[in-house]
Amino acid sequence: MRGLICMRNGSVVLKKDVPEPIVKNEEVLLRVRLAGICDTDLQLARGYMGYQGVLGHEFVAETIDGKRRVTAEINNACRTCRTCRAGRSNHCPNRTVLGILNHDGAMADFVSVPSVNLHDIPDEIDDRSAVFIEPLAAAFRILEQVEVDSKTSVAVVGDGKLGTLCARVLQTKTAGVHLVGKHAEKLKTAGKNIKTHLLDQIGSMEHTFDLVVDATGSSSGLETALRLVRPLGTVVLKTTVAGNHEVSLAPIVIDEVRVIGSRCGPFPRAIQALQSREIDVLDLIEAEYSLDDAELAFERAGRKGARKVLLRIDGN
Amino acid sequence: MRGLICMRNGSVVLKKDVPEPIVKNEEVLLRVRLAGICDTDLQLARGYMGYQGVLGHEFVAETIDGKRRVTAEINNACRTCRTCRAGRSNHCPNRTVLGILNHDGAMADFVSVPSVNLHDIPDEIDDRSAVFIEPLAAAFRILEQVEVDSKTSVAVVGDGKLGTLCARVLQTKTAGVHLVGKHAEKLKTAGKNIKTHLLDQIGSMEHTFDLVVDATGSSSGLETALRLVRPLGTVVLKTTVAGNHEVSLAPIVIDEVRVIGSRCGPFPRAIQALQSREIDVLDLIEAEYSLDDAELAFERAGRKGARKVLLRIDGN
Repeated sequence: MRGLICMRNGSVVLKKDVPEPIVKNEEVLLRVRLAGICDTDLQLARGYMGYQGVLGHEFVAETIDGKRRVTAEINNACRTCRTCRAGRSNHCPNRTVLGILNHDGAMADFVSVPSVNLHDIPDEIDDRSAVFIEPLAAAFRILEQVEVDSKTSVAVVGDGKLGTLCARVLQTKTAGVHLVGKHAEKLKTAGKNIKTHLLDQIGSMEHTFDLVVDATGSSSGLETALRLVRPLGTVVLKTTVAGNHEVSLAPIVIDEVRVIGSRCGPFPRAIQALQSREIDVLDLIEAEYSLDDAELAFERAGRKGARKVLLRIDGN
Repeated sequence: MRGLICMRNGSVVLKKDVPEPIVKNEEVLLRVRLAGICDTDLQLARGYMGYQGVLGHEFVAETIDGKRRVTAEINNACRTCRTCRAGRSNHCPNRTVLGILNHDGAMADFVSVPSVNLHDIPDEIDDRSAVFIEPLAAAFRILEQVEVDSKTSVAVVGDGKLGTLCARVLQTKTAGVHLVGKHAEKLKTAGKNIKTHLLDQIGSMEHTFDLVVDATGSSSGLETALRLVRPLGTVVLKTTVAGNHEVSLAPIVIDEVRVIGSRCGPFPRAIQALQSREIDVLDLIEAEYSLDDAELAFERAGRKGARKVLLRIDGN
C-alpha cells in the first residue's frame, strides 16, 4: 500500500510498497479516506520524539466492510497497568500513539487501530470537518481541566489552527475570548465575536486575564501567556516544542500562576459540536492534496501562516 | 539607627547612621528583636529584583510601648485597587514588600509596618522559633493551593530550610512524604517519618508522585520535579531564581502536569503550628550573630548547606 513515512533522519517520504498493517489483537483494520496534517506532524518530520513510521493521527476512515465511517482516538493504552487501572489510560506508560509513538498512523491506504478507540462519525459531519475531530477534542480538553464560565476572561495566544479552535471552544462558555497572534490575515477569520489583537499590541492587557491558553507552538508562547495572565490566574500550555526553552519562571511563583499542560481531549464532545454546528471548522482548511502529492502537501503545511492541509487518500 | 543595607551594586553593608523609618499612615513603628536570613535575602544581595534598602522580612519585634511581641506579613497592599478588592491583596500591583520591594525591612533597630499586617506572637513561641513564622506560613500556603490527604504521595525536592519546612508541613496531612536533596547530613535531620533520598538515587521513583514541591532554589529544580511527578500530577514551584532558565517544557504538556507557583502563606496557621508544637523548627538554626556582625552572618548563610542564620538585633 501507499504510506507517508517519517524517516529517522527527519525527512518525509511517500512509499508505494509499504506492507499493510499487521492487525494486532483487539485492533481493527480501516481503509483511510482523508487525513489532516498537524503541526505535530511537521515537528515529527523535523525529528521530534525520534519517530519512525507512517505519520498521521487526524483522519476519517471506513471499516473494510464499508459499513461504518469512523475516526479513532490516538492513545493506544495497555489497559492493564496501574496508570490505566487508575483511569488515566491516556497517560499509560506502555502506550503507543497513532502516528507519533511506536504505532503506524493514518497517512496510508490502511491503518489498524484498537477497536475500543473507534468513534462513528454522524452523517451530518462531512469528511473534511471530521478530520478536525481530534484537534477539536484537544481544544475541548481545556474545559475538562479548567472551570470556565460567563465571567471568565480568556486570551488565546497563537492564531494557528489549534489556537483558533481553542478560541472557538472557549467562546461556547464565555463571551470574553481574545485571540492574540502575529498574522493580521488569520486574525480576521478568528471566528464570530472573538476579539483579536496583534502580538505587539497587547501592552494594555498585561496581567488581566483569568485564563490564557498558549497554543503558539513556539518556545516564546509561555512567556507571552505569563505576561497576559493575572495573578492567581491559569495558563493552559498546549505547545510542545522539542528541546529546551529559555524562560524566566520567577513570574509563575511571584504571581502564583497555575500552568496546566493539556493534550488530548474528549472525542464525543468534539463530534457533538461539529454535528450540531456549534463550532464550524471548514474555514480553517488551506488546501487538499492527494496522498500521492504528500510531499508537496507537507511543504505547503510548513509555510508560515498555513492553515489545515488535508491529504485525500481514497481518491485514486 | 543600625541597618543592614542591600546596595544597588549587589553588596550588603551594615550602616550605623540609617535614618529611623518614616512611619506612614496606618503603619506602626516596631523595635526589632531578632531576624532571620532567608535565601531570598541572599539572592537580593546578588542583585535579584534590583532591591536597594534595609533587608529583612523574617523577624520578631515589639511595639515601642513594649506591650506586644509581634511579627508581620510582608506584602503591604494598597487595599483599594481592583486586585485588592477582589480579595487578592497579596498580589496588589501597587504593593511594597518588606525588605524586598520598595519598603525597608527588619534587619535594623526599627522597622515600620502596616498595623493590619501585625500578628501577635503567643508566649509559647520563643523568639528563635517565631522567626520561622513567615517561611512556615509559605510552606502552609501549599495546603491552601493543593488538596492533600492521607493517600497523597508527596516528594519535596530541596533539603534546605524551605524544603524541610514544606516536608514537615505536608507530613501533617499524609504519611507519604519523601524529601530529596543533595546533602546527606541535612537529610538526616529532615524530620520524623520523612523518607529521605539523595538526588542521584531517585531513578526508581520517577513519575510516581501525586505532588512534588520544588524548593531547591535552583534552576534545575523544576526539571527534577517533572521527573518525579506522575502524569496528571501537581508540581508546586517555590523556587524563584533571577534570570532565564533552560528547561524542557514538553513534559508538562505530554504528562498534563499542573505547575503551581506558590509564595506567601497564612500566618495564623503557622503560628498555631508552632504554638501547639505540631511543627518544630529550632533544629533548623545554624547560628546566631549580632546585627553588628551581619556581614559575617551573611557569609555564613551563603555557605553551601547552611541552615537558618539569625541576627540578634536587641542584644546590644
